[in-house]
Amino acid sequence: MTEQKGKAKDLLVVGTVAIDSVKTPFGEADSVLGGSATYFSVASSYFTSVRLVAVVGEDFPDDYLGVFKKHNVDTSGLVRMKGETFRWRGAYGYDLNVANTLETKLNVLTQFDPALTEEEKSTPFVFLANIDPDLQIKVINQLKAPRLVALDSMNFWIENKKKSLQKAISMVDMIILNEGEARELTGHSNLVKAAKEVRIMGPKTVIIKQGEYGSLGMFGDEIFSAPAYPLEDVFDPTGAGDTFAGGVMGYLARHGGVTGDIVRQAMIVGSALASYNVEAFSLQRLTDLQFNDIVSRYNEIKRLTVFEDFAH
Amino acid sequence: MTEQKGKAKDLLVVGTVAIDSVKTPFGEADSVLGGSATYFSVASSYFTSVRLVAVVGEDFPDDYLGVFKKHNVDTSGLVRMKGETFRWRGAYGYDLNVANTLETKLNVLTQFDPALTEEEKSTPFVFLANIDPDLQIKVINQLKAPRLVALDSMNFWIENKKKSLQKAISMVDMIILNEGEARELTGHSNLVKAAKEVRIMGPKTVIIKQGEYGSLGMFGDEIFSAPAYPLEDVFDPTGAGDTFAGGVMGYLARHGGVTGDIVRQAMIVGSALASYNVEAFSLQRLTDLQFNDIVSRYNEIKRLTVFEDFAH
Repeated sequence: MTEQKGKAKDLLVVGTVAIDSVKTPFGEADSVLGGSATYFSVASSYFTSVRLVAVVGEDFPDDYLGVFKKHNVDTSGLVRMKGETFRWRGAYGYDLNVANTLETKLNVLTQFDPALTEEEKSTPFVFLANIDPDLQIKVINQLKAPRLVALDSMNFWIENKKKSLQKAISMVDMIILNEGEARELTGHSNLVKAAKEVRIMGPKTVIIKQGEYGSLGMFGDEIFSAPAYPLEDVFDPTGAGDTFAGGVMGYLARHGGVTGDIVRQAMIVGSALASYNVEAFSLQRLTDLQFNDIVSRYNEIKRLTVFEDFAH
Repeated sequence: MTEQKGKAKDLLVVGTVAIDSVKTPFGEADSVLGGSATYFSVASSYFTSVRLVAVVGEDFPDDYLGVFKKHNVDTSGLVRMKGETFRWRGAYGYDLNVANTLETKLNVLTQFDPALTEEEKSTPFVFLANIDPDLQIKVINQLKAPRLVALDSMNFWIENKKKSLQKAISMVDMIILNEGEARELTGHSNLVKAAKEVRIMGPKTVIIKQGEYGSLGMFGDEIFSAPAYPLEDVFDPTGAGDTFAGGVMGYLARHGGVTGDIVRQAMIVGSALASYNVEAFSLQRLTDLQFNDIVSRYNEIKRLTVFEDFAH
């Protein structure tokens, strides 16, 4: 059940909608709904109203659109083009922290050229999921006085379009990267150094995802360490990072701000959502949550981290 | 400056005192003081009175004994034997999480056969640092009604003396392992599963060290996630795990108990001490702390982890 505030605190995500085939030690899922913008939009929909800008092909099943509808995600910016949908095939070993990409077929993604509507341009909170940084820059240039723009990226762009990526990073307020990407981008193995270096590039807020270990946030003079919720059964980590980002941005948009306290809470919300997402393949679990499930896992994470003052 | 409570809340550690040669990307240290019981005893000495049982050779510099004296560590159980001191030579790459052992010379360690005095046998808190599990069992069998016995181990013993190690584990109240060891010992890559499996072997409390990510504690129905303090400059991770364990056990001994709340605080104390220890080679930083330094880093870690309730 989606519980959205009706205020003008909207969130726009530009990214991928994909068809995934995933194999883990616990089973496999063939041709299921995936993509960065998919996980992100469903996750954030629990907190705010979301507009999706992405592209799919002629083969994209109408059934899958039902997922967005269920979560009141505005899909008027989801363009259907001639050709096939972006497809990703991957596998995980027992170390679920590392995804092995077996096949990537970009298909219609190669023609993706997001032209925003007037309404989309005026969305106050904007997330640029992992796509070509040149497209991210194109989107940013269309925005009209956004309150917060954040982006994600991946090793491929760091290695192949570093200049464009650096430019995109210089234009945003916040970045959400995983630790390997932060290290590769900056050349610093130490994450505090890496995060500082990224902040010098532009974004005031840097959030570094650490997989099963949680995440580190740096903003102002503050560092915040958010644990992952320790799960006994992780079935499929696909989309965990995008789900985390969706939780973070959804919560920020809901509260219309980015104070240190709100960012801390938002990261815990992201952790809570990501922990549910990995309990099943594709978006099975993520689409199935009650609002109270999220609050209750948030409270469990609080119990997980709380400790009293030093006792002399 | 050591600030010890004068009560009979004593702590015994049985382990190694070594001479280390360490190379990191930031420098190297040749023939410096090291060993599991060394780091452990100095770390725990900030909180309680500590007895050390270990062995060194004729080459062990008297100067190094000054470190124990400075911290009021009772070294009457430190035996000097004919032969050379245990020596370890290791190196770290830019990924400081992984130590590469270049050389291990057991030397007098092969003759180590701890026979405890009556006083040592009656120590209420006991830590068996990483040594041959058969020796750990020998020590446990000599103890008279200890309040808490904990142990550490390493991959070598898991691979070469698993049965003995399992027996030793079944005899203790608490175990402090790193995550790789927990996985190797149980065959579970999932840490929650691994910790549960270890608890079935005997110990009520399981603490899993996760290097730069912190640690996970499991006790009763509780899980506690303690972050590592995010440092910008890590010079030498040698001894971080033993320092962490020393902080944990020292704090437990100081407070004479192992309630959930005290274990949580103890893990944060361990994190605080370990974060200082890695700032310099050998025990340079660890021997140099004021009690208030520890409390102040404890408070910084609190600020690092604190977040408010979910805001609707």
